[in-house]
Amino acid sequence: MRHDGRSHDQLRPVKITRNYIKHAEGSCLIEVGDTKVICTATLEDRVPPFMRGGGKGWITAEYAMLPRATETRNPRESSKGKVAGRTMEIQRLIGRALRSVVHLEAMGERTIWIDCDVIQADGGTRTASITGAYVAMVEAMDKLVKNGTWKQLPLHDLLAATSVGIIEGETMLDLNYKEDSSATVDMNVVMTGQGKFVELQGTGEEAPFSVDQLQEMLTLAKKGIDQLFVAQKESLHDVTLSFEKSEQATVTEEKHV
Amino acid sequence: MRHDGRSHDQLRPVKITRNYIKHAEGSCLIEVGDTKVICTATLEDRVPPFMRGGGKGWITAEYAMLPRATETRNPRESSKGKVAGRTMEIQRLIGRALRSVVHLEAMGERTIWIDCDVIQADGGTRTASITGAYVAMVEAMDKLVKNGTWKQLPLHDLLAATSVGIIEGETMLDLNYKEDSSATVDMNVVMTGQGKFVELQGTGEEAPFSVDQLQEMLTLAKKGIDQLFVAQKESLHDVTLSFEKSEQATVTEEKHV
Amino acid sequence: MRHDGRSHDQLRPVKITRNYIKHAEGSCLIEVGDTKVICTATLEDRVPPFMRGGGKGWITAEYAMLPRATETRNPRESSKGKVAGRTMEIQRLIGRALRSVVHLEAMGERTIWIDCDVIQADGGTRTASITGAYVAMVEAMDKLVKNGTWKQLPLHDLLAATSVGIIEGETMLDLNYKEDSSATVDMNVVMTGQGKFVELQGTGEEAPFSVDQLQEMLTLAKKGIDQLFVAQKESLHDVTLSFEKSEQATVTEEKHV
Amino acid sequence: MRHDGRSHDQLRPVKITRNYIKHAEGSCLIEVGDTKVICTATLEDRVPPFMRGGGKGWITAEYAMLPRATETRNPRESSKGKVAGRTMEIQRLIGRALRSVVHLEAMGERTIWIDCDVIQADGGTRTASITGAYVAMVEAMDKLVKNGTWKQLPLHDLLAATSVGIIEGETMLDLNYKEDSSATVDMNVVMTGQGKFVELQGTGEEAPFSVDQLQEMLTLAKKGIDQLFVAQKESLHDVTLSFEKSEQATVTEEKHV
Amino acid sequence: MRHDGRSHDQLRPVKITRNYIKHAEGSCLIEVGDTKVICTATLEDRVPPFMRGGGKGWITAEYAMLPRATETRNPRESSKGKVAGRTMEIQRLIGRALRSVVHLEAMGERTIWIDCDVIQADGGTRTASITGAYVAMVEAMDKLVKNGTWKQLPLHDLLAATSVGIIEGETMLDLNYKEDSSATVDMNVVMTGQGKFVELQGTGEEAPFSVDQLQEMLTLAKKGIDQLFVAQKESLHDVTLSFEKSEQATVTEEKHV
Amino acid sequence: MRHDGRSHDQLRPVKITRNYIKHAEGSCLIEVGDTKVICTATLEDRVPPFMRGGGKGWITAEYAMLPRATETRNPRESSKGKVAGRTMEIQRLIGRALRSVVHLEAMGERTIWIDCDVIQADGGTRTASITGAYVAMVEAMDKLVKNGTWKQLPLHDLLAATSVGIIEGETMLDLNYKEDSSATVDMNVVMTGQGKFVELQGTGEEAPFSVDQLQEMLTLAKKGIDQLFVAQKESLHDVTLSFEKSEQATVTEEKHV
Repeated sequence: MRHDGRSHDQLRPVKITRNYIKHAEGSCLIEVGDTKVICTATLEDRVPPFMRGGGKGWITAEYAMLPRATETRNPRESSKGKVAGRTMEIQRLIGRALRSVVHLEAMGERTIWIDCDVIQADGGTRTASITGAYVAMVEAMDKLVKNGTWKQLPLHDLLAATSVGIIEGETMLDLNYKEDSSATVDMNVVMTGQGKFVELQGTGEEAPFSVDQLQEMLTLAKKGIDQLFVAQKESLHDVTLSFEKSEQATVTEEKHV
Repeated sequence: MRHDGRSHDQLRPVKITRNYIKHAEGSCLIEVGDTKVICTATLEDRVPPFMRGGGKGWITAEYAMLPRATETRNPRESSKGKVAGRTMEIQRLIGRALRSVVHLEAMGERTIWIDCDVIQADGGTRTASITGAYVAMVEAMDKLVKNGTWKQLPLHDLLAATSVGIIEGETMLDLNYKEDSSATVDMNVVMTGQGKFVELQGTGEEAPFSVDQLQEMLTLAKKGIDQLFVAQKESLHDVTLSFEKSEQATVTEEKHV
Repeated sequence: MRHDGRSHDQLRPVKITRNYIKHAEGSCLIEVGDTKVICTATLEDRVPPFMRGGGKGWITAEYAMLPRATETRNPRESSKGKVAGRTMEIQRLIGRALRSVVHLEAMGERTIWIDCDVIQADGGTRTASITGAYVAMVEAMDKLVKNGTWKQLPLHDLLAATSVGIIEGETMLDLNYKEDSSATVDMNVVMTGQGKFVELQGTGEEAPFSVDQLQEMLTLAKKGIDQLFVAQKESLHDVTLSFEKSEQATVTEEKHV
Repeated sequence: MRHDGRSHDQLRPVKITRNYIKHAEGSCLIEVGDTKVICTATLEDRVPPFMRGGGKGWITAEYAMLPRATETRNPRESSKGKVAGRTMEIQRLIGRALRSVVHLEAMGERTIWIDCDVIQADGGTRTASITGAYVAMVEAMDKLVKNGTWKQLPLHDLLAATSVGIIEGETMLDLNYKEDSSATVDMNVVMTGQGKFVELQGTGEEAPFSVDQLQEMLTLAKKGIDQLFVAQKESLHDVTLSFEKSEQATVTEEKHV
Repeated sequence: MRHDGRSHDQLRPVKITRNYIKHAEGSCLIEVGDTKVICTATLEDRVPPFMRGGGKGWITAEYAMLPRATETRNPRESSKGKVAGRTMEIQRLIGRALRSVVHLEAMGERTIWIDCDVIQADGGTRTASITGAYVAMVEAMDKLVKNGTWKQLPLHDLLAATSVGIIEGETMLDLNYKEDSSATVDMNVVMTGQGKFVELQGTGEEAPFSVDQLQEMLTLAKKGIDQLFVAQKESLHDVTLSFEKSEQATVTEEKHV
Repeated sequence: MRHDGRSHDQLRPVKITRNYIKHAEGSCLIEVGDTKVICTATLEDRVPPFMRGGGKGWITAEYAMLPRATETRNPRESSKGKVAGRTMEIQRLIGRALRSVVHLEAMGERTIWIDCDVIQADGGTRTASITGAYVAMVEAMDKLVKNGTWKQLPLHDLLAATSVGIIEGETMLDLNYKEDSSATVDMNVVMTGQGKFVELQGTGEEAPFSVDQLQEMLTLAKKGIDQLFVAQKESLHDVTLSFEKSEQATVTEEKHV
């Protein structure tokens, strides 16, 4: 049993509060255990310069933590005058993950800005951000459906994320901060409603992992993500989430050299 | 009557939620109408380099807004790589105001970091920040009293702040964003429990104001601030707030050249 | 009596030298005691992007000190790669103050850039900057009157500034650096020729001040500013300063959230 | 068959030139097809501040591209004044990967700085960097063995990396730039000589991938990496590469919150 | 005799490898002794904003060193977030020198970007950069001649550079790093094929030099540069280098105030 | 005859006002025609980190222009957040030039900070800065002689600088801005009282120059600099300027790679 009483394949309690910030087109507070993230989605009627004239939409994300989201105070990136590598990595991950289930061609030349601000951190902030950002994004998209701009949501699928890891040789689902600190392998998994992978980021800095261990971790992740889909759908009960098969976006932010 | 139904001398509803962030030594969520600010206080067992060896403590403050705290999205200062002049002005104001009621000599060489993060903005964010920061600061100080480090709170007095202004010739208390946008004079007032001024910042960019108008505004401000003191004291009901007369701090962050 | 022999209500000697920098459209050297500031005004035939198409003009200000303007050498802000909070606060103050007496609608889409560079500092640099900047601005404006671009100066009123403070319980006019360092209350006052307030910034970090003390300080400030108006008018003896009543500017740099 | 004539499971030609830069303690030029990276390893007799006193060593990496390594000129990050998110992500990846096979406790308080500078890019620069950096690092470590500072190399295992992807539904090994641009799934794999994973980073931004596809890609990757091990060992023929079982490093650069 | 066996008027071995980077329009690796610089030339079909509409072309240069080009590791300028003064000085020198022999009017509104990246440094990197950059520039220009865009190379003359100095009272040609460190006078000379000076930068920080010593140094420099012209012409044997007299460029990057 | 009536070998009027800034240990206003520079020297009782423990002193310089020193307003480098290449080049030149005549070993571990701030620019600002900085530096050094810290000035020689150039084929002394703009060759010359060169920086971007032209320019420069020595000595009439032969400084800021 884990230090907070969970079994190895058990998620922490998940709570999603919609309409959390009055000014935003879409917003929620997502709580996964003690991890709390405010996610907002902002609609903008244009795309970044490198996409203009292409007729397609764009999704971009920013991520930050309040200084006291963590156990000890973290200096602000604005005071330091630059965004940390870790922050950029997470921002890029969130944007890429969301774009993978959005029909960018169907958006027209519009951008959705996603902001994920961690107000309390206890492990899994990047995966909670993705799960919450999906809800905020759908809420904002739904505004454009409801006002007649779009006929339907430009969405392919559901999307949620969780972390898995290996602690003292055992695979665990949804690590909190204390567990994450003692894990030898740490993996973030982003999946679609169809059970396919959108992102897989596994790191065995402290001990490499085998193909079998990988398999076990992916099975756990799928189990957790299926529960997150339930929470998302409950929270979006007023929105019609029916996905047709459509061609996928083919624009990517930056090709890998 | 004002567009939200208030009379000219009426505050918006005020709500202070203590212990809002689990990691911080002191924290609250302050809501003044639709303005919402997370205030945290962090204890650090040392002072900045320019104060070392002086035996005194220090209070410093940072202020920021989430990108979607405002009606349209505001780019992050971390993305822009620098802190705006407005932000710095507010940070300096919050720090100066709090220090004015703290007995720095009695703190020992400790720093209290104040963070005010606006999650939803509707006017008066800097004054709400001061009012909330005082509560978070006292909560953190009280931890050091409760654990025996200090015998009593190193405090001179209560402290709270509100804004007043002139709209179409009439003085108004506690302007919300819509009112603030149409005010010709805008004044922020920070007062102590003794009814004295700690900061007075009045700007008549659109129309200068007379001595009489100044007098009216200060009377309104005092009325509002007295109500904020009540809210602060209720929220801190478990903390003994008895102020003895003590010598005041004489260290200042930067002298005015 | 004060350490430099002045009475409590006495300004330091004021000297304004017009036409100080040959390239600038308007310029002066203002000396207030040992405080010396070069003020220039630059005319530009366009306004910043956020104002284009509005038909109105704009006034903006920058402020800096030479490294050796102060008793010990101050590193350059360009070397540090960023502008200090104090500098931004002063720049915003100077711009706001000047705009309050300018008829921006009458300027057409033109900007006046004000630069205040302190070459020697001995207290009161921001108020000397405002007083001197007004002269440089009028000199530049007058060029456009003399060349027929404007029929008259787009000005509502005179404008000057001074500081007042409380030292050992006594109110004092026009603090020099030594006095400022020992003041418990420090207040900057910007007034119009009509005797109205444009900016009031009082700080009692070391001791809060009462309504009565505020009243005394404002009376002193008015006395000093009236003398500054005399010096400004002498220095601008060749310029016709007749103010008609006109509608005031209603554009503001940034609204206060 | 692929546009350059390779079969789907074929690496591009690999060439590693040791001792490429005379000043560096370890260095090589690695060429994987037209991708060319200069890798250097620098020994420093101290560790970063956050590790001092811990008795362990540290490996850190930096990565950059010459402006004309790419088809069109890429502005320098030094001119832009900041390091791109992509660069930071790669730097963190290289450092983490190398540390996973190093016995940091056995290094003493020493740092090895890895620099990977891409002089010509044609896809797979980050995986070529890891493969080459391993060689440069071992060359530098061997200097300390040869001069008697260390008894043996503080190494657990071999380490190399390659990319795999899915193009038009087919899995491919070692994508060049043209292939990478048309891949729907892109995965970087870092493995140890024992056939275990150290890093797995798969992205299906354009089309999610199934468990079966993942399995196929990992099999291809292993095949390619086994050939890279042969190239590394040939290039390091003069160095004794015998790995004993040893306790692994337990310090990590930053824990994931 | 010098520590590497050269006589005082002897260049180090020079080797120029053309077509070094496949993506660049022009490129070479220049080796002068152990100093190795990758020079590339990039063609761009427009000029910087300050030159648009003038009908002329522009040449601009950037210079950098890999961190381990030097004996001890040099932190990257991108990590430090700013370009050092020394780097800017060298970049400006390279650009100015190349422009002096180019017929900018004949280029049309095109820019040639020169990049000089030092991969191994042993003294004389800025002069080797100029000598190599000329070759890369001509290679790129020749592409536009060969494809018919230009009728002939827009060039006035040859251009090469070397350093001379005074060590223990004796003048020396082409100082390597060890010699440069002990030189009391250090001079960089850039000359045209006609034997005229384009740049002369002599520094006697450690001992001023007389007119006679200047004369001796310039004679040595001319001798060395004449040999560099031979190496350049051999390397460019496939390019027709016939210079007609033409009017010279009259645009300069920044006038000296 | 030149447009301002001077002959080709005539300096503009030179005026040096000592003791210009009350706080600085040394200061002057130097006027060369309409070029006006405030030069200050600041004594600091320590050297930069890279020199500590060496027992020697250091001279470093900073240079800037007020925004309206020039015909059109120049944005501040502090607003742009970085120092221009031209500024750094000039700062390095001033520091190097002054160090060349100072006996750094005799200074003890002290730094002299030189600040040259151009308040009005009309060509030749860098050479005027050097000439004026020498006076400010000697004034500051003399304070340490007068208070008994040093027995004598740690100086080898006089130092002054001027510019020469070629305009329409004719050599000219001390170019003003208008002349400088039309010069094809521009050369800055820094000389010692012994008539030796400390710095020689000649640029023929618009037309290369021959050995004979170089000779003519150096003769003119010497003539002008001899007059500057007279002005410096008059201005320093109260300081004993007797130079003994002493060993020269051997520390340099950065060696040329």
